[in-house]
Amino acid sequence: MSQTPIEQPVVKEIPPKAADLSAWYTAVCLKAELASYSPVRGCVVLRPYGYGLWENLQKHLDAAFKATGHENAYFPLLIPESLLLKEAEHVEGFAPEVAWVTQGGGEVLTERLAIRPTSEAIIGVMYAQWIESYRDLPILINQWCNVLRWEKATRPFLRTMEFLWQEGHTAHANAQEAREETLRMLDVYREFAENVAAVPVYAGIKSANERFPGAVETYSIEALMPDGKALQSGTSHDLGQNFAKAYDITFLDADQQIKFAYTTSWGMSWRMLGAMIMVHGDDRGLRVPPKMAPLEAVFVPIVRKGDDRAVAACHDAAKALREAGFRVRVDDRDQQPGWKYAEWDLRGVPVRIEIGPRDVETGTVVLVRRDRAKGDPEQKQSVPLGELAQALRALLEEIQISLFAQAKEFLTSHTFRVTEREEFYEKCKTRAGMIDIPWCGRPDCEQYVKEQTGATTRNTYPLSAAGEKCVACGEPAVVRAYFAQSY
Amino acid sequence: MSQTPIEQPVVKEIPPKAADLSAWYTAVCLKAELASYSPVRGCVVLRPYGYGLWENLQKHLDAAFKATGHENAYFPLLIPESLLLKEAEHVEGFAPEVAWVTQGGGEVLTERLAIRPTSEAIIGVMYAQWIESYRDLPILINQWCNVLRWEKATRPFLRTMEFLWQEGHTAHANAQEAREETLRMLDVYREFAENVAAVPVYAGIKSANERFPGAVETYSIEALMPDGKALQSGTSHDLGQNFAKAYDITFLDADQQIKFAYTTSWGMSWRMLGAMIMVHGDDRGLRVPPKMAPLEAVFVPIVRKGDDRAVAACHDAAKALREAGFRVRVDDRDQQPGWKYAEWDLRGVPVRIEIGPRDVETGTVVLVRRDRAKGDPEQKQSVPLGELAQALRALLEEIQISLFAQAKEFLTSHTFRVTEREEFYEKCKTRAGMIDIPWCGRPDCEQYVKEQTGATTRNTYPLSAAGEKCVACGEPAVVRAYFAQSY
Repeated sequence: MSQTPIEQPVVKEIPPKAADLSAWYTAVCLKAELASYSPVRGCVVLRPYGYGLWENLQKHLDAAFKATGHENAYFPLLIPESLLLKEAEHVEGFAPEVAWVTQGGGEVLTERLAIRPTSEAIIGVMYAQWIESYRDLPILINQWCNVLRWEKATRPFLRTMEFLWQEGHTAHANAQEAREETLRMLDVYREFAENVAAVPVYAGIKSANERFPGAVETYSIEALMPDGKALQSGTSHDLGQNFAKAYDITFLDADQQIKFAYTTSWGMSWRMLGAMIMVHGDDRGLRVPPKMAPLEAVFVPIVRKGDDRAVAACHDAAKALREAGFRVRVDDRDQQPGWKYAEWDLRGVPVRIEIGPRDVETGTVVLVRRDRAKGDPEQKQSVPLGELAQALRALLEEIQISLFAQAKEFLTSHTFRVTEREEFYEKCKTRAGMIDIPWCGRPDCEQYVKEQTGATTRNTYPLSAAGEKCVACGEPAVVRAYFAQSY
Repeated sequence: MSQTPIEQPVVKEIPPKAADLSAWYTAVCLKAELASYSPVRGCVVLRPYGYGLWENLQKHLDAAFKATGHENAYFPLLIPESLLLKEAEHVEGFAPEVAWVTQGGGEVLTERLAIRPTSEAIIGVMYAQWIESYRDLPILINQWCNVLRWEKATRPFLRTMEFLWQEGHTAHANAQEAREETLRMLDVYREFAENVAAVPVYAGIKSANERFPGAVETYSIEALMPDGKALQSGTSHDLGQNFAKAYDITFLDADQQIKFAYTTSWGMSWRMLGAMIMVHGDDRGLRVPPKMAPLEAVFVPIVRKGDDRAVAACHDAAKALREAGFRVRVDDRDQQPGWKYAEWDLRGVPVRIEIGPRDVETGTVVLVRRDRAKGDPEQKQSVPLGELAQALRALLEEIQISLFAQAKEFLTSHTFRVTEREEFYEKCKTRAGMIDIPWCGRPDCEQYVKEQTGATTRNTYPLSAAGEKCVACGEPAVVRAYFAQSY
């Protein structure tokens, strides 16, 4: 109908995932109605089904933040240029990506206002105001918001100019507490990725090249995509006193000395949804882990002409499940069952519940698992209606575990502890997966590997033995590093 | 400690509410740590306690939206100028308030991008893409987001350049459904304002002068503040086919005709929090209705030297209440009880629970109601520990009802059905409250009243009798209208 010129790729069929992950991914995002391209270059619309995934991410992460003592707040979208300039590395890192407001209320502004690419600057200024004594510490605040970083390319969730995320910002009285906080939130991310999104990750320390601008140390969780590329899925930064010094965040300590605070920041964005989609999806579309699923199960009645008992049975059973806390829907649209199966498969609903005329008579329902292939003998099971809630709960738990196990098996089988230089470069170049080597930690070495292969360190962890050599360059190793090409 | 130049008013004491509502309001917002002024002109920071109020607003409204069939989604922050220009009245209404992005990624843009003042334009373009047939209707979507409208003045929640809100946008196959939706959401707002925020409102139709730019009809809920000024607290717009025509939102109807859709939009912002603060607060600070309270009750142990049984008793009781679903905290800081009473009174926590050495021995606790004055014989009650949850639940319900009743009594006693022209102008001028008259509905008449008194219509409702004359001008009346000065 529309004559509005948006370059919306038209998706007729979803191409096989193995053949072209990128085409598969875009097709699934659009056809499952997770996202739409918008007329704003670089920006996508998060449609209701995609937003349902985001709401579940928010629900789980927000509870984890609150359980670790954090509160939510909201800081301004616009940051005056002079504030952004206060932390030198920070502004250098973000300046090329900033969108600037230069006009407002019909006038040209005397100072440009940045749309926040991240909020360290504005939050730093406020913390400087709020914190007076050691009794005011720690400050543990999180913000759910939109941020904007100028991008040329657009891929739903993975690369967009504007994106939704959360950013935690904390201030502490000493370096140790700040480090503990940084690691605690890294673990919250790892726990969420693995136990909720069912995406296994490697948690570790970023190299100097990959560090957040202005941070003392950046930690990340890194997932592996089916094409052998890594996807950074959450970061946690120990900012030391760098931002406290730039924004004058000081406090009067118990010893009557005025000291600079130690700050941290940590963020996870809707990118995590991109990882989840790529890791679990198959040729039929999405496979959504039950804990993330907007709908845990969908009822499809199989209707014989003139007999609508199956529809009534679905609605009755759905009502009972809803009252028991399940997220379910009845698809009673006037369409063939096969058409509905394909649609809910595409949307990755973990369980389909079929009720046909025979089921009505025998008082049973058929549960069909989305995570198993068509024809798999364990794909379907018939259960008595009276045991539906119990069976569904068990099945959802099993699917959650099974999706994680499959993804974990992929990550493990595509992680290579390599000892030969040639093999290392070859595996990096061919996107074999996570290439795990003793590494020298030198930016020059990483830069060389990048130029030769396109791979960089994703993150690093301690050496298990002393005296090892860097597999990439032969210098003494100081850490172990995962190398991979990345999104 | 800070040397950052933010004009943050320093609040030492809260001035009496009756003497200067404006000074009282600002002092309470800052001192209760609801909000801080920021270094971005026109923008405030929503601090954790203020965000806690916002979270409760979100929780209640979001559930009401979902119960009425709506889903959440997210649309881009930036709107290309050419899109905004498509609906003539709309752009004329909002253009003076827009902030423009003109530079991004280090380049000057060829087209300015508006930061959304509201999202009809961008959502209209997407609906045009998504809607093909009558089967795609209705579309019922809500968005929680930040918007920006250029403002000179700044008052937390009431008038800020950037603010948080929700905006619902729906599309329907015919005019009747759109009108029903508009009224349904108006009632969701009224219900929320009265039953959750405990703020009584008048729901009605806006005059032509006060209508949303581009709407066919705008409805609002209007609350009355203690200074006799009205505060618009939520609006719901029937947009007819105006936006559908501007953004080409068409559908193939069942009769095979291509038709324009009918759309609606409706919004409530953090302004509602401002209404709640002003309506309920007193000279001691906030009085938060229990359903909106981040903390429903706070425990204050009264400690005798060398005897910390009261502290332990508080923690035990708090744990039991939390498990029963209450939002409570123990204030076990090393401060005098009186200091703590003042702080929690300031923050408006509905109930204070005191446990002293004698209570520990008798197995009782003292409940103190924030809504009653100090010294009121019903302010305090002693209850056995075993009945605490039950007593607290009952007390919170009573406080919720009592706060609404007080506010309702104020609204009723400050609503005047006036029949004499002189009295009408006098009451408008002196901000007597809601001045309710038969009205001619003519923009000229409203403009004249505004020039003479500063008051405008807040909203209107049907005449109960025919043949009445407009009290303001003497022409035949067509509706009844509430006139008031407003925020």
